[in-house]
Amino acid sequence: MFDSFVTRHWFHAEAKRLWSDEATLQAWLDVEAALAQAQAGLGLIPAEAAATIAAHADARLFDTERLAEEIAFAQHPLVPVLHRFEELCGEPAAGYLHWGATTQNIFDTASALQMTATHAVIARHLEQAIDALSRLALEHRVTAQAGRTHGQHALPMTFGFKVSGWIDELDRERTRLDERLAGAFPACMGGAIGTFAAMGPAGREVERQLAALLGLRPAGLPMRSSYDRASDYIAALGLLAGTAQKIAQDVVFMQRTEIGEAAESFHVGKVGSSTMAHKRNPSTALLLASLARMLRARVPAALEAMVRMDEGDSSATNVTDTLLPEAAIIAASVAQTLQRLAQGLVVDPQAMQRNLTCTQGLIASEAVMMRLTPLIGRHMAHRVLYDAAQRARSECVPFLTAIVEHPLLQGLELPPTLAQALEPSRYVGGSASLTDETVARVQRR
Amino acid sequence: MFDSFVTRHWFHAEAKRLWSDEATLQAWLDVEAALAQAQAGLGLIPAEAAATIAAHADARLFDTERLAEEIAFAQHPLVPVLHRFEELCGEPAAGYLHWGATTQNIFDTASALQMTATHAVIARHLEQAIDALSRLALEHRVTAQAGRTHGQHALPMTFGFKVSGWIDELDRERTRLDERLAGAFPACMGGAIGTFAAMGPAGREVERQLAALLGLRPAGLPMRSSYDRASDYIAALGLLAGTAQKIAQDVVFMQRTEIGEAAESFHVGKVGSSTMAHKRNPSTALLLASLARMLRARVPAALEAMVRMDEGDSSATNVTDTLLPEAAIIAASVAQTLQRLAQGLVVDPQAMQRNLTCTQGLIASEAVMMRLTPLIGRHMAHRVLYDAAQRARSECVPFLTAIVEHPLLQGLELPPTLAQALEPSRYVGGSASLTDETVARVQRR
Amino acid sequence: MFDSFVTRHWFHAEAKRLWSDEATLQAWLDVEAALAQAQAGLGLIPAEAAATIAAHADARLFDTERLAEEIAFAQHPLVPVLHRFEELCGEPAAGYLHWGATTQNIFDTASALQMTATHAVIARHLEQAIDALSRLALEHRVTAQAGRTHGQHALPMTFGFKVSGWIDELDRERTRLDERLAGAFPACMGGAIGTFAAMGPAGREVERQLAALLGLRPAGLPMRSSYDRASDYIAALGLLAGTAQKIAQDVVFMQRTEIGEAAESFHVGKVGSSTMAHKRNPSTALLLASLARMLRARVPAALEAMVRMDEGDSSATNVTDTLLPEAAIIAASVAQTLQRLAQGLVVDPQAMQRNLTCTQGLIASEAVMMRLTPLIGRHMAHRVLYDAAQRARSECVPFLTAIVEHPLLQGLELPPTLAQALEPSRYVGGSASLTDETVARVQRR
Amino acid sequence: MFDSFVTRHWFHAEAKRLWSDEATLQAWLDVEAALAQAQAGLGLIPAEAAATIAAHADARLFDTERLAEEIAFAQHPLVPVLHRFEELCGEPAAGYLHWGATTQNIFDTASALQMTATHAVIARHLEQAIDALSRLALEHRVTAQAGRTHGQHALPMTFGFKVSGWIDELDRERTRLDERLAGAFPACMGGAIGTFAAMGPAGREVERQLAALLGLRPAGLPMRSSYDRASDYIAALGLLAGTAQKIAQDVVFMQRTEIGEAAESFHVGKVGSSTMAHKRNPSTALLLASLARMLRARVPAALEAMVRMDEGDSSATNVTDTLLPEAAIIAASVAQTLQRLAQGLVVDPQAMQRNLTCTQGLIASEAVMMRLTPLIGRHMAHRVLYDAAQRARSECVPFLTAIVEHPLLQGLELPPTLAQALEPSRYVGGSASLTDETVARVQRR
Repeated sequence: MFDSFVTRHWFHAEAKRLWSDEATLQAWLDVEAALAQAQAGLGLIPAEAAATIAAHADARLFDTERLAEEIAFAQHPLVPVLHRFEELCGEPAAGYLHWGATTQNIFDTASALQMTATHAVIARHLEQAIDALSRLALEHRVTAQAGRTHGQHALPMTFGFKVSGWIDELDRERTRLDERLAGAFPACMGGAIGTFAAMGPAGREVERQLAALLGLRPAGLPMRSSYDRASDYIAALGLLAGTAQKIAQDVVFMQRTEIGEAAESFHVGKVGSSTMAHKRNPSTALLLASLARMLRARVPAALEAMVRMDEGDSSATNVTDTLLPEAAIIAASVAQTLQRLAQGLVVDPQAMQRNLTCTQGLIASEAVMMRLTPLIGRHMAHRVLYDAAQRARSECVPFLTAIVEHPLLQGLELPPTLAQALEPSRYVGGSASLTDETVARVQRR
Repeated sequence: MFDSFVTRHWFHAEAKRLWSDEATLQAWLDVEAALAQAQAGLGLIPAEAAATIAAHADARLFDTERLAEEIAFAQHPLVPVLHRFEELCGEPAAGYLHWGATTQNIFDTASALQMTATHAVIARHLEQAIDALSRLALEHRVTAQAGRTHGQHALPMTFGFKVSGWIDELDRERTRLDERLAGAFPACMGGAIGTFAAMGPAGREVERQLAALLGLRPAGLPMRSSYDRASDYIAALGLLAGTAQKIAQDVVFMQRTEIGEAAESFHVGKVGSSTMAHKRNPSTALLLASLARMLRARVPAALEAMVRMDEGDSSATNVTDTLLPEAAIIAASVAQTLQRLAQGLVVDPQAMQRNLTCTQGLIASEAVMMRLTPLIGRHMAHRVLYDAAQRARSECVPFLTAIVEHPLLQGLELPPTLAQALEPSRYVGGSASLTDETVARVQRR
Repeated sequence: MFDSFVTRHWFHAEAKRLWSDEATLQAWLDVEAALAQAQAGLGLIPAEAAATIAAHADARLFDTERLAEEIAFAQHPLVPVLHRFEELCGEPAAGYLHWGATTQNIFDTASALQMTATHAVIARHLEQAIDALSRLALEHRVTAQAGRTHGQHALPMTFGFKVSGWIDELDRERTRLDERLAGAFPACMGGAIGTFAAMGPAGREVERQLAALLGLRPAGLPMRSSYDRASDYIAALGLLAGTAQKIAQDVVFMQRTEIGEAAESFHVGKVGSSTMAHKRNPSTALLLASLARMLRARVPAALEAMVRMDEGDSSATNVTDTLLPEAAIIAASVAQTLQRLAQGLVVDPQAMQRNLTCTQGLIASEAVMMRLTPLIGRHMAHRVLYDAAQRARSECVPFLTAIVEHPLLQGLELPPTLAQALEPSRYVGGSASLTDETVARVQRR
Repeated sequence: MFDSFVTRHWFHAEAKRLWSDEATLQAWLDVEAALAQAQAGLGLIPAEAAATIAAHADARLFDTERLAEEIAFAQHPLVPVLHRFEELCGEPAAGYLHWGATTQNIFDTASALQMTATHAVIARHLEQAIDALSRLALEHRVTAQAGRTHGQHALPMTFGFKVSGWIDELDRERTRLDERLAGAFPACMGGAIGTFAAMGPAGREVERQLAALLGLRPAGLPMRSSYDRASDYIAALGLLAGTAQKIAQDVVFMQRTEIGEAAESFHVGKVGSSTMAHKRNPSTALLLASLARMLRARVPAALEAMVRMDEGDSSATNVTDTLLPEAAIIAASVAQTLQRLAQGLVVDPQAMQRNLTCTQGLIASEAVMMRLTPLIGRHMAHRVLYDAAQRARSECVPFLTAIVEHPLLQGLELPPTLAQALEPSRYVGGSASLTDETVARVQRR
């Protein structure tokens, strides 16, 4: 999927590099080198050994094709790498490699490095998406648009207010991811089951030093039997997916042929259909929705894989070790596609106005109700508007006429502003101020 | 499920009351009353109206059976309640009821109240579970037990260390839930689409005052189109489920007939089987696993339901409005069952010792390897131990014999502590200190 | 959820009765009675015992409130029921009750009875939905409508063709459910682990006779450790949910304020909003989508619960024993709501025509391309239409003008039918015949 | 994941080839060629054009790297391929390429070809797995083993009986997949929205002929808006995953250090741990469980993606177009790994016997109860055994002693076969005959 000639452009190139074979191997080697360095610093292994190890911690010295074969034979993912690494280092340094560590320690810590790098990519795209949407929101802070609930016109609002809802949610998503990253992906070096037995009393300090060298937090108790931290981050990616898909769906709707209120960017050469030459599909929004679904679909497996037997269980770690790169790459792609969608969105205020007025005032029924309420109570006012709306529809009389002719209003002095109340663009409430306030808040970060 | 005569005892009685028809209706009325009070405080409606409304905000004055019928007819969940409430209040107060609010505002705010109350229940059980497990961990800080990975003996540890892993994870779960609660369930009063149009410029302040009255945070932008906050909390409940199921699975394994290292509490009168009179099933642990699965299964729907059309979409809110009570009750049941399991767990240190020694030292192979490594390097040491372990198994010679007779060790002076290294209970690493430290940390909160 | 005063009307009343406490208990008793009858017929137990058992197999003789308490104490779901049943029967008949059976046998066989009854309910609603939609399809077999892909006008079709797609899919759903029912829910009587040990060699024949008495198939090997059959049916319910939600979503879109091509039935008294009196929401379609999501969300738990330890595992059976009633009731509600939606759908052919022509012929670009292809090849024709469509949009010239003025067509003799080709209602292809054929096929069943 | 040097050996090499870029492109070209051939046969296009198209339908003539770039630019997955194909064919044949088809027709039909080939791979592995397990079942038809429910010894059985449960379930899985394949993956050629408009009245016949040429069924109504068929097959793959994971989990348990009843094959050179040289992990079974989880996790997305807008929706088809290859490859890997596990399973009857007798007869309590029931009724017999089992545990008296000393049995003449009844291997019920019968049934296919 990531490499297919059909779909590779859907997926974030840099994120794919961050999780490529080479980068993964390099991350493993970096962790082994940092481990040796930490241990040398604490006098557990000779400083020369650590230097030799560091000097050979270079993925280019390894042949991943051959490693792949050896891994398949040994049915072990790391031992063949260690053998090669030992060859490169030679004795006595080789003897101090991977000292007191277990495979899963290396994997968890290496993926923490990769995930941290991917997080920066995601964060960058989210920031730019939020920036683009913030500009859009401010630009359209008073551009009136129909607010819709359940697919029906509800109340007027402004397009800036709609976009504010998106950026408010996106801002929470990035805050969530930022706050959870470090806790979710710590450095782990407790050995086979996390007791630090092989390193003796210095083990905890080795983990702390290693974490400091790599810019991570120390895990303390082991990750391999306790995956809630990473699952929490993956769940937060699922939330990001939910937000992205909501925005995508809103755009797809606004670009509907009959609606036409917004459209994503188009360039000549972009093709909608192999057979329908006129098609201009919201393909970025649809791709965003697709990527978001793929990302969201990864969450349940991450939760289920928290349930691990005893002190270690490869039926769970196999799943999360492969799911994490997938989730990371898809998440970066979601963020990137969201940025592209946000930056290219073209708005048609005329279409918004046309749609807003197509119910000839029905959309502002609440505004009228609020004006009638002081006269006849909220309940009666609701009934008058309800009846008038049905009559306007079934008898095609103007809504205002149906209101003022309603039996319950006869003999009452109606407020002179009723007709004005039916003007939708006057009833957008705090749309503009909420827009200003939201943009200011997300930019203040 | 919650009320069935077969399964009702699985589910938390208090949590069910918190989400009963009566409690739900009362929460709605409380929100309406607080809304009126906030509006009166700001001079939007007469103080007398607010007082009248508050005086009639009592679920006992409503007939839920009749409301159920009216709701089915109107196909609207709140309007019949408002009609009855208006009748009770009489004019003019009735006219000020539900002023500027929309149904979903009332629902979201009311469920925030109910969720906050349920959270306190969950937190209480988690605290007691953690307390009970902390005592157990300290009691068994040096009780040796086989650490297992992939279902095989790996390294020795102590039972206290195992339990520390549980409480460390549980402590993160409760912290997560505590931190997310208030953000996840704010008070919302922005009206139909969240623009505060009906209340005019004072709307934002009404929401703030209302939130303060109810002990909630103000939402600002609307919840009905933006559910990430609540979904985040529900995802955290899914994480709690993962942790609970992991613990339950560990207990079920330790109570296995052949293992017998731990058992859940038993009382005479508890029946294991209608046909096998001898059965003592780990039924609390299995129930905990079942409840955890039910809870975890609710997460994907909460993420999917973030994708809502436009400014409101009952195809999503219908789902979350019914899923929230379910998730809340099941979560409380998970927490309660976990507490029961934790408080009743009976440990058999003899069985732990018996199982620990059943491989006659193989479990401590790493200890020997770490001692041989200075002599022949880590790689060679791994090979010696690997060969010796295969020979010990296939030829039934003692592991120590197979080690010292290994060709690679001939002519070397072996450390005198090799035999000692094969004693599993000497190789538990930092089990005890990690136990102490973890218990201290979770208790310090 | 099923009984809440707010939402109980969403759920199928008869289906709820089929899974009520009373009905569940009665189904258990029916299975016990049939077991005794089968055993008496084979001479395993006295005929008088079977007759006595049958005579007392009446749920009205049991007090479910008291049973609920006893079940909670024994932590066993059936033993208290058996005790009461034994009391009612008295010795010696009591001694022959539940002979050689295990609890899970009774539960699985009883739920097979309840599921079979629920299936009939579902099938009836699906048939009526298909009938209603078939009438609608035939009525609108030539009513032209815009076909849309990716939210954009694609090609013209007829509304009958669209509805044919729905009924084709629904027809497959009901066929699937019909075909899987009997295999999915067999009668099981193999005892504790399915070896028929307690009944000796006659056990298999007891299961066969029991199955015959109850109208079920015999299971052979045990269900309790092998749930694929029922999970397959539940997955088919998930497919039904997918189809229902697709239809619901199509209706919600067609009822969009700006589209207005169809609307679900409305009655005076139905309320759209507590604050917006004019709202006419597609509440049935949105409810259908909600119920479909709830149903679909049950599938993963049913698949996960196939993974059961050894010969029996209540951490899985607890889940499926409670999930099955939920899934059954929700599925019946989906089918019922679908029927209501289908029967009430109101179509507006004028709106369809208005929308169809709103792109002034762009929707028929393929028709023109197919006419130009013999002149200039498919590739060039696609390019001409692509360019013309962009120009029609950007310069607001009529599409036909943009086509005939395209440089690539200069000097060519264009077919005289080009203008005609742009008339959308002429390019609906086999819409009508596919409609006729589909309706005939689904009705032939 | 599929290509990573760490995990590529987990995944089926042939299945990966069946879904490689080259194979996918070739499948597209094969469909285009068959389309032209069908159309030529019906006189819609010249026979020479079809021949030219067929002659160039060779993936080796295309440069997938370059296509990848063009696809990214056009944001359309097929149009660049068609351009290259047209170049290769030259006019006039190029003009008849892709005649009346839409992209999704080609994709759906091509993936039907690829899925059919993958199905054959899956079926072959399942057959061999079932064969191997059948041999194992027959070999151990009378090898006594403890049957376990809820993790506790329940009743004796034979290992052949346990394996029969596996093969019975596997046999249903393969039957399911076989039965659903052709319906799930038909040939589709209805054009952009499925009306066959571009091909006129002959369209349906083109689809039929095309299907016949490719060995598929004709779809009739379009797949692109109606994915229930393929989702049904994917759900069946999810069921296969459930079965595979259940078997894997049973093996992992039986290989537990303390249990040792079975072990998967081992070869010298297979490594269990980088630090614990003695480890022999059930790595094949754990891998099988991991793959099964990955496969099962794909089902919800396939169900959700049935909900597609209108006549086509790439936010759904993007998901299923990429999910299908993944699910296919993972499913083939599950089947292959299952075969490997089945063929390599090593059984230890002595360990089974040792475990079976470790409760000193408690496991056969039901056998005793069935013998006491004629004397004192089933209820009293259950109570006697219940009390005796508690006493045997708490006072460490032999179970038989605790039984015969029970107050309720005093003064009664006990059956002389009580001691015999406590011999577990005598109480395996129909284990052997069920084994014979199951093996015969699955082999008869």
